Amino acid sequence: MAPPPALRDVSKTLTWTASILLLLCLSRFSIASAGDEGSGLFREVLRDEAVARLSELGKISDVDGYLERTFLSSASVKASNLIQSWMQDAGLRTWVDPMGNLHGRAETVNASVPALLIGSHLDTVIDAGNYDGSLGIISALSALKVMRINGKLGKLQRPVEVIAFSDEEGVRFQSTFLGSAAVAGVLPASSLQISDKSGVTVQDILRENYFETTGDSLLQMKYDPRSVWGYIEVHIEQGPVLESIGLPLGVVKGIAGQTRLKVTVRGSQGHAGTVPMYMRRDPMAAAAELIVLLENLCKQPEGFLSYDGECKGFMDESILRSLVCTVGEISCWPSASNVIPGQVTFTVDLRAMDNTIREAVILELSSRIHQVCDRRSVSCIVEKKHAAEAVQCDSELSSHLELAAASALERMPGGFQGDVPVLMSGAGHDAMAMSHLTKVGMLFVRCRGGVSHSPEEYVLDDDVWAAGQALLAFLEKHVI
Amino acid sequence: MAPPPALRDVSKTLTWTASILLLLCLSRFSIASAGDEGSGLFREVLRDEAVARLSELGKISDVDGYLERTFLSSASVKASNLIQSWMQDAGLRTWVDPMGNLHGRAETVNASVPALLIGSHLDTVIDAGNYDGSLGIISALSALKVMRINGKLGKLQRPVEVIAFSDEEGVRFQSTFLGSAAVAGVLPASSLQISDKSGVTVQDILRENYFETTGDSLLQMKYDPRSVWGYIEVHIEQGPVLESIGLPLGVVKGIAGQTRLKVTVRGSQGHAGTVPMYMRRDPMAAAAELIVLLENLCKQPEGFLSYDGECKGFMDESILRSLVCTVGEISCWPSASNVIPGQVTFTVDLRAMDNTIREAVILELSSRIHQVCDRRSVSCIVEKKHAAEAVQCDSELSSHLELAAASALERMPGGFQGDVPVLMSGAGHDAMAMSHLTKVGMLFVRCRGGVSHSPEEYVLDDDVWAAGQALLAFLEKHVI
Repeated sequence: MAPPPALRDVSKTLTWTASILLLLCLSRFSIASAGDEGSGLFREVLRDEAVARLSELGKISDVDGYLERTFLSSASVKASNLIQSWMQDAGLRTWVDPMGNLHGRAETVNASVPALLIGSHLDTVIDAGNYDGSLGIISALSALKVMRINGKLGKLQRPVEVIAFSDEEGVRFQSTFLGSAAVAGVLPASSLQISDKSGVTVQDILRENYFETTGDSLLQMKYDPRSVWGYIEVHIEQGPVLESIGLPLGVVKGIAGQTRLKVTVRGSQGHAGTVPMYMRRDPMAAAAELIVLLENLCKQPEGFLSYDGECKGFMDESILRSLVCTVGEISCWPSASNVIPGQVTFTVDLRAMDNTIREAVILELSSRIHQVCDRRSVSCIVEKKHAAEAVQCDSELSSHLELAAASALERMPGGFQGDVPVLMSGAGHDAMAMSHLTKVGMLFVRCRGGVSHSPEEYVLDDDVWAAGQALLAFLEKHVI
Repeated sequence: MAPPPALRDVSKTLTWTASILLLLCLSRFSIASAGDEGSGLFREVLRDEAVARLSELGKISDVDGYLERTFLSSASVKASNLIQSWMQDAGLRTWVDPMGNLHGRAETVNASVPALLIGSHLDTVIDAGNYDGSLGIISALSALKVMRINGKLGKLQRPVEVIAFSDEEGVRFQSTFLGSAAVAGVLPASSLQISDKSGVTVQDILRENYFETTGDSLLQMKYDPRSVWGYIEVHIEQGPVLESIGLPLGVVKGIAGQTRLKVTVRGSQGHAGTVPMYMRRDPMAAAAELIVLLENLCKQPEGFLSYDGECKGFMDESILRSLVCTVGEISCWPSASNVIPGQVTFTVDLRAMDNTIREAVILELSSRIHQVCDRRSVSCIVEKKHAAEAVQCDSELSSHLELAAASALERMPGGFQGDVPVLMSGAGHDAMAMSHLTKVGMLFVRCRGGVSHSPEEYVLDDDVWAAGQALLAFLEKHVI
C-alpha cells in the first residue's frame, strides 16, 4: 500500500499543531476586502518575475531528475552566475568572496553609514524544493529592482547589500553555514580542512574554483560589526503554522539550537550464515536499537527531564514539543546482504528551542548509547559535528519587519488586516551565523503543507508577491 | 575504544559452540604420531604451490586496499584467466561457458561414463578473505596436477571436470548461484534481466564480456544428469566447529536453507527541524524498530514457535540455534543529516537447517513488519529476492569423502586417527544449486577463529595440504 503524499499527512494534523506548537503571539487579525488590484504593487516584478526566477533557479541541479546543489558544486557556480546577473539587473555592484558567497551592494553617498544586509543561501539539500534559500535571495533582489525602477535606489540613506550564501545546508561537508559564518567572522580556519566522503577538503573545492582561501583570508573576510546596521532574511517557514492560520507571512522570534552528531558503531564482521546469534557483536542491530532509543527520548523527554528538579522550569509543553531528533543518514561496511557488518555509521540531528533541554538530551543520549554498546560488546563513538545555540531575533528589527509585513498584507489583493503572527523556527538559517555579527530579523513565508527539503515544497505565487511587498515596505521605511 | 579483532571474539566462545551447534556426529578420534614426513605426500604441489596460488588469486581485486571480485568484473575475468592457466597446468582441457563459468576437464577413453564434477566459486564478497571459494578450486587443481605428474590422469576410468563458478556470493545482483544454477539447469531466463544498483542487467554484463547469452543458451547449458556421476566441493568451514575440535577436515551432512528479503519502508520526507515528532512518518525509525524485532525473533524463536503445537518436533536446541538473521545492507533516501528520510531499504538474510522453521520465521516476521508499519503509518514492502531449500548431502558420496579425509589425515605429518567429524553448513554453497542436477558431497576445511567474509579469514598451510590430500585420495579411489 503506497502512503498518501507527504502533503496530505501534514495537512491533516494542522489544526491541533497550531495550538501546541511554535506560535507565540497572534491576535486580532481579520480578512478585509482590498480594492487595490495591482496598482503600485509591482506585480510583474515582485510576483511574476520572482516566481519565474525561482523556477529557473530550481532547474539548475548537479544531477538529473531532482534538485541538488552543494557547496561550490558545478550547479552552485552556475546558479551563482545567474543570481549575479539578477543582482546587476537590480542595480547592484557584485562580487564573489573567498568562500564563494555572492554579494550585490547598493551604496549611499555617505560611506560611513552602517549597511543593511539581506541574505539567504543558494545551496540546497539532496532532492530539494525550489524555495528553500532561493526565495530569500530572489525576493530581496525583486524588491531592490522595484526601487531601481522607481528611482529610489539612487536615494539610499543606508547601504543595502544582498548576500547569496554558498553553504547553509552543509550536505557535502556536514558543516552548516560555511558561507555566512565566514562573513560573520566565526568560521575557524580548521573548517578549511573538513573533508567530504571522498576525502576532498573544503580548501580543495575552493582551490578548484580558483579561490586560494587560507586562514588569513577568513580573518580578512569578517565584516566590521560597526559597518553593519543589521541582517534580515526572508525564508519559507518549512513548517505548518502559517498555513494553519491562513496567513502568508510571519515574523520569527527565534531559531532553535541544533546539534549534529555522527555515531559510529563497530562490531565483529562475519559470515551471515555461520556465526550464531549468541556469538554476534552486530553493529547493525546495535545501531537499530540506538535509533529506536533516540526516537523514544525525543518523543517523551519528560521521562528523564522530570527527574531533574532544575528542569521543571523548562517543562512548558510547547518548548518540550519543539524537541526534534532525526537520523537522516546511515551506512554500513562492507554492505553486502550476506555479511554481518563490521561497522555502521549514522547521523543524529537534534534541535530544541531551549539550549538547556538540548544539552540535557545529548547528555542522556550519550549515556544511554554507551550502556547499549557495552551490553552488546560493540564500540560506539559519538562525535559532535556541529552545534549552534538557539538564537533570539532582535526585537526592534522584528517589530520593523512585523509592521512591514502587516502593511504588505493590507495592501495585497484580497488583503489581510491585523497582527502578523510571531513564531519560532525549528530550522536553522544563515541568520544564526549572522547573529554573531549583528542584530538579526527574519520573515517567514507560508509553504504548502509545511513541507520542505522535498520536491513537494511549494509557495503560492501570491505569497512570493507578499514577501517581496513586505521587503519593499521595510526598505522604503528604513534605508531611504 | 576500538573493539578487539573479530578473530579473538569468535575464538573465546569456541568451547561451548561446538557442543550446541552444528556438530552431528563425532567419536573415537585420536592424535597419533606419524613418521611419514612428506614422502608421497606431494607437499610441494598440494601445500606450497596451492598456498602460493591462494595468495596470488587473493591479490586480484577490483579495488585497491581490499579484496572484491563480483560477477564477471574485470578482476573476476583476470582471476578466471589465471585459473585457466592452472587448469592447463593440471593437464585439463578448458573452456568458458555462456554464464562465465570456467571449466577444465580430463576425459576417459569411454566417453559415456558419467563424470565427477568438482567445483567452487571464483567471485568474492566485498572486503573478502583469500580462501572462500578459491580453496575449493585450487585444491582440486592441485590434486589433479599430482595425478598428471604421477601419470594417473591418463588412466581415468571416469571423466573429471573442475568448474570455477562465476557467481556464488551474488553481491552485485543480489542473486546467488548464477554460475552453478545455470550448469544445474535451474537458472530461469528471467535471471538475465536482474539489474544491479545502477540498472545494469546480468545480460548487459555478459554482453560486455562478449557472451550473447539468452534464455536458449541457458537451456543448452544444463548438463544432462545422466552424464554426471556426482558433484563434490571443498570449502572452508566459515564457522568455528573444526577449530574447536582440533581437526583440519570435516564432512558436510547438509546445507542450511536460506531466504533473502529486501524490505522497503516509505514514509513522509521532510525537514529535520520543523516536523514535530508526533507528526512524523519516519521510515528510519520504523526500519530500526523492524531490525531490532528481527534480531529478537531469531534470538528467541521459541517465543513464537512454541505457540504452534505442530512445531514441537522442531524444538531441538541445535536446530533452533542454527537459525540466523542478518541485516547486511541498509540505505536511505535522500540521505542528508538534516532531512527526515522518505525511504529506507534494508536486506534480510535468514538461514536455518530446517525449512519449516525458516518458513515459520518469515511468516512471523512478515506479519510483525506489517503490524509495525501500520502502527507507524508507513508503507512496507517485503520482497523475496532469493530462496534456497536446505540440502542434504548424498550419504554415499559423504561416506567416500569421509574415508578419503580419514586416510589423508592419517597420512599427514603429525597425523590424525579416528572418525572425521560430520557437520552442517550454515553458509550456502554451489553444491546447493548442483544438488538439483546430481548427488552432492562436501568437505569442510578448518579456518582460524571460524572467521570468513573478512580479510581476517585464514587457513593453515598444512590444512590446505590436508584438503589436497583428501581430494587426491578420493580421486585415486573413485575415478581411476
